[in-house]
Amino acid sequence: MNTKTIAVLTSGGDAPGMNAAVRAVTRTGISSGMRVMGVRRGYNGLLNRDVFEMNLRSVSDIINDGGTALFTARSPEFNTPEGIQEAADNCRDMGIEGVVVIGGDGSFRGARDLTKAGIPCVGVPGTIDNDIASSEYTIGFDTAMNTAVEMVDRLRDTTESHDRCSVVEVMGRRCGDLALQTGIAVGATTILVPEIPYDFQRDIVDRMMFTQKTGKKHFIIVVAEGVGGVDKLAKDIEAKTGIETRATVLGHVQRGGSPTLRDRVVGSVMGYYAADLLYHGKGNRVVVMRGGKITDLDITEALNMTRTFDKKLYDIAHRISI
Amino acid sequence: MNTKTIAVLTSGGDAPGMNAAVRAVTRTGISSGMRVMGVRRGYNGLLNRDVFEMNLRSVSDIINDGGTALFTARSPEFNTPEGIQEAADNCRDMGIEGVVVIGGDGSFRGARDLTKAGIPCVGVPGTIDNDIASSEYTIGFDTAMNTAVEMVDRLRDTTESHDRCSVVEVMGRRCGDLALQTGIAVGATTILVPEIPYDFQRDIVDRMMFTQKTGKKHFIIVVAEGVGGVDKLAKDIEAKTGIETRATVLGHVQRGGSPTLRDRVVGSVMGYYAADLLYHGKGNRVVVMRGGKITDLDITEALNMTRTFDKKLYDIAHRISI
Amino acid sequence: MNTKTIAVLTSGGDAPGMNAAVRAVTRTGISSGMRVMGVRRGYNGLLNRDVFEMNLRSVSDIINDGGTALFTARSPEFNTPEGIQEAADNCRDMGIEGVVVIGGDGSFRGARDLTKAGIPCVGVPGTIDNDIASSEYTIGFDTAMNTAVEMVDRLRDTTESHDRCSVVEVMGRRCGDLALQTGIAVGATTILVPEIPYDFQRDIVDRMMFTQKTGKKHFIIVVAEGVGGVDKLAKDIEAKTGIETRATVLGHVQRGGSPTLRDRVVGSVMGYYAADLLYHGKGNRVVVMRGGKITDLDITEALNMTRTFDKKLYDIAHRISI
Amino acid sequence: MNTKTIAVLTSGGDAPGMNAAVRAVTRTGISSGMRVMGVRRGYNGLLNRDVFEMNLRSVSDIINDGGTALFTARSPEFNTPEGIQEAADNCRDMGIEGVVVIGGDGSFRGARDLTKAGIPCVGVPGTIDNDIASSEYTIGFDTAMNTAVEMVDRLRDTTESHDRCSVVEVMGRRCGDLALQTGIAVGATTILVPEIPYDFQRDIVDRMMFTQKTGKKHFIIVVAEGVGGVDKLAKDIEAKTGIETRATVLGHVQRGGSPTLRDRVVGSVMGYYAADLLYHGKGNRVVVMRGGKITDLDITEALNMTRTFDKKLYDIAHRISI
Repeated sequence: MNTKTIAVLTSGGDAPGMNAAVRAVTRTGISSGMRVMGVRRGYNGLLNRDVFEMNLRSVSDIINDGGTALFTARSPEFNTPEGIQEAADNCRDMGIEGVVVIGGDGSFRGARDLTKAGIPCVGVPGTIDNDIASSEYTIGFDTAMNTAVEMVDRLRDTTESHDRCSVVEVMGRRCGDLALQTGIAVGATTILVPEIPYDFQRDIVDRMMFTQKTGKKHFIIVVAEGVGGVDKLAKDIEAKTGIETRATVLGHVQRGGSPTLRDRVVGSVMGYYAADLLYHGKGNRVVVMRGGKITDLDITEALNMTRTFDKKLYDIAHRISI
Repeated sequence: MNTKTIAVLTSGGDAPGMNAAVRAVTRTGISSGMRVMGVRRGYNGLLNRDVFEMNLRSVSDIINDGGTALFTARSPEFNTPEGIQEAADNCRDMGIEGVVVIGGDGSFRGARDLTKAGIPCVGVPGTIDNDIASSEYTIGFDTAMNTAVEMVDRLRDTTESHDRCSVVEVMGRRCGDLALQTGIAVGATTILVPEIPYDFQRDIVDRMMFTQKTGKKHFIIVVAEGVGGVDKLAKDIEAKTGIETRATVLGHVQRGGSPTLRDRVVGSVMGYYAADLLYHGKGNRVVVMRGGKITDLDITEALNMTRTFDKKLYDIAHRISI
Repeated sequence: MNTKTIAVLTSGGDAPGMNAAVRAVTRTGISSGMRVMGVRRGYNGLLNRDVFEMNLRSVSDIINDGGTALFTARSPEFNTPEGIQEAADNCRDMGIEGVVVIGGDGSFRGARDLTKAGIPCVGVPGTIDNDIASSEYTIGFDTAMNTAVEMVDRLRDTTESHDRCSVVEVMGRRCGDLALQTGIAVGATTILVPEIPYDFQRDIVDRMMFTQKTGKKHFIIVVAEGVGGVDKLAKDIEAKTGIETRATVLGHVQRGGSPTLRDRVVGSVMGYYAADLLYHGKGNRVVVMRGGKITDLDITEALNMTRTFDKKLYDIAHRISI
Repeated sequence: MNTKTIAVLTSGGDAPGMNAAVRAVTRTGISSGMRVMGVRRGYNGLLNRDVFEMNLRSVSDIINDGGTALFTARSPEFNTPEGIQEAADNCRDMGIEGVVVIGGDGSFRGARDLTKAGIPCVGVPGTIDNDIASSEYTIGFDTAMNTAVEMVDRLRDTTESHDRCSVVEVMGRRCGDLALQTGIAVGATTILVPEIPYDFQRDIVDRMMFTQKTGKKHFIIVVAEGVGGVDKLAKDIEAKTGIETRATVLGHVQRGGSPTLRDRVVGSVMGYYAADLLYHGKGNRVVVMRGGKITDLDITEALNMTRTFDKKLYDIAHRISI
């Protein structure tokens, strides 16, 4: 027997493209003959019963909006045995037979626990950090990277006009993917990521000095959030090289903005898959991208995977940025 | 023995990200110990010997530029047995032992012929149309799609303010990928592609009427270049539905602009691979993306492949755009 | 005695920044102690009584949206003595004692007529065409120009990569301002506007030939909507100069998009002034920009003014684009 | 007798649109029959004789670039009696009979001193800060504001999704114009500028509490660089209101990027005027915008003017942001 009423929520940090996923879940659900409920502010909405029934038009004209139309929040109350139980009870009470959870690893752990408590859940990876081991891609990553690139391109103008060095911190929490990709795209002289230790003299100073000898006068160093310390780094670079150096932290601006095509399309397809899984009675799954294709995995299995950093790409990056 | 002097050219229609590929070829080549020559205006440059030696700084600050810093052209003179022979002779004369050709299928046929004439070539897929059977992705595709999305988002504002229908033609030549992806991203009511025949009443009028009943008052129809006929289509829709309808052809604007992160990164990695293949003495290859990874194939084999349209994605698109 | 209930509507073609004006009218009105009614779809809304009371939150988060949240339409029914009378009667019936009309000259004529019929109106110039004689600036003009510039910048990439000439038609109806400003901003070789007759040989061919001799290989010709004929012009240029030439009509894309700062700020200030005029019991006025300042004029007087084209700026444009 | 050889330089902080001005000076100068020299890195280039003759093509395709193609620098050596003398001597030696100086007030003082030392100079206001008393507008201001608006629009997405308050510091040094205009454009709840003292409880907390009662759940506070202290302010707001609050410093990103139409057009026209003044033998002038028109003033007179902050606009801003 198929699930008849499902719900959808967004949890954790917001990410551009979440709205595409919410829209696809809703439209796929309704066109499959299910009722679809929107839950506001993540798991909190299940605790507070802040839930409303959606129709086809509830998700009109949101695919191009950043953020999440369902709002989001972190929910410490939910992350307790009592919280999980209460959320499951509320779901049963409201007739919710399955939940699509759009968020990161933390949100997936909640989805796993809620499944155990009797409400089948499907996770959809939505975070700008691309820090989910089980999926090659997370919704929001492309938009955040393009925002970072656009901002560094602007910095490049002033950096170049003044023959300076710019040290730029980009987001990504403990994951260096955003820094690596952004660094390649802006032609950064050096990219610092938490996964690879660096040597100040060899990886920064010597590289700058080498390219300076070939005629280059301005430099961009991209630093992952998980490495940090850009203010000190800028001072050290200026002290050591004599090149005027400025630090910039791009900050929360990277989280917002109208989603790129990729985040809208991946969000749409993943949302479709998630609703379809619940329609076919499958829970405790997470929708992922693997080998460039959208597929699904067991949540528990997915949560046990470990990320591998693309060292080969990291080496290519530095090979062509000289 | 490794190739010692290589050349790089861009051929056919320009595509954003070509500069990232040129830059990566140049830097990878030089850092491998090879000489790298830039060829201006595609194969014409080999015929006219419009070739110059590049250094590390020749490709500075081009990664964020649209178009191609090497210029491009179509070359009917080259596409003859005499033209191929002359180009090969010129290469030998100038000491060019390998050529990276960035372009589409037509350019790859030239690369195959030039290889046969004794100059090993490696192709890199660069075209906004994504119409190369051997590669899941072509450099420039992401930028062109995002430009199309941005433009349709603008059209959406006026379409919505006036309760209209917009019929928008996007590029892609005989390939519907650009229309399909753009259509998903903008939430188009219907997407018309050359690969799938459509029925005016069922696929356009009935879908519009159905969504209108659910409360929707404005509509976007995305039409691939390979389908065309948007002016007539707009008139037919207005006549049949009574909804004011306007046609727009997005045109060459889709070809330009600063490349997105994806085109910069894929361009960079593919350029690296191409130079590395020539460094290792491998010719008659084309660099491709398959299963989300960058790899290489024999050019002749690649040219014999046939494209398959993603019918499943097409169906999902229409499932969630109601 | 002050007006107690006012209404606001947007009429004619939509323009980015109209929402800023609607928001400012609403907030200024309410904070002055008045009731503010939103009217949907221009004067039609007065005929159909499609009117709703707004509160401070009714206009939240619309300042950054393109188009108009109140929708717009042209209203032939309104433009008759009977239509005017009916609208005025409806206003009296609904207690509406003043109306802010955001739109172009056509909309202002309606505002004048409605004032004569007993409902004091204030006009706010909102149109992307900048074709209102009484005001140096109309809301939406800056956004439309910047969109045009951004699109021509993209065209420039492909035009330059292929050594081509691009002939680009921009909007503006009978007014050449948008073409003139855009042409300066993109460095167009020649700008054609309806206000200044041109000579094909002298103003296009000779200019292209002259700059070609100085080393220039790509060309952009900007043509105002009021001149038109870009397809034929492109053919003529190619035939005469031998330079490959392509025509592009930018089209309705120029109407949409998130408003620029200028349109948001000018829209906000003009909206404030309009509500303030009604608050002080002044009708039959139009808010305008003159000498860089926001002020107001009698509508009838404003409608009788004639536009003057900035010939001096036109000459400077061509002086520096060689 | 007219000046025969002129030079152009950019000085102080770079600003988008400087290239439009350089291009207009160059083209106007050459088309008037003068020789035009480009000076690299501001006044330093006069000291180092880092000067080159330009032709019509030297300034091709720079109008859409951010930063300055002539590079810029601050020059402490120049700002001494000996430095001024040396620069003047070098000018005479190189045949430079007039200099266009694009920059801020500091650069204009240099221009005044160099004029006194016998080299007639004309200043063009180029700075993103709009902090030049004599001119209503400075080149770069519009681009910087639009960049700030675009970035705050992105912040708004995440601020809204999380029901937060964002405290955003924008540039402008001691001048609140950029903060004021940006604050209006993003609908900031409160705008803090150095020209107007503020009361934490009344202007921030009470305003937030009032709008919260009307249903608003997310807030943006725009703070001028000249006020600063956003980290502490964010903590204080969160402590006092209980609303989660984050601080962001937009930073140097605001300096770069392709110039908006306005900066390209104003830059072009001001550059034209400056070259034309030198052509007519007029020095010690500064080109300014007054009453929306481009005109010129005596530099010394201009430097003695004092800025007035637009208090009326500041009040309107807060009137409509509730």
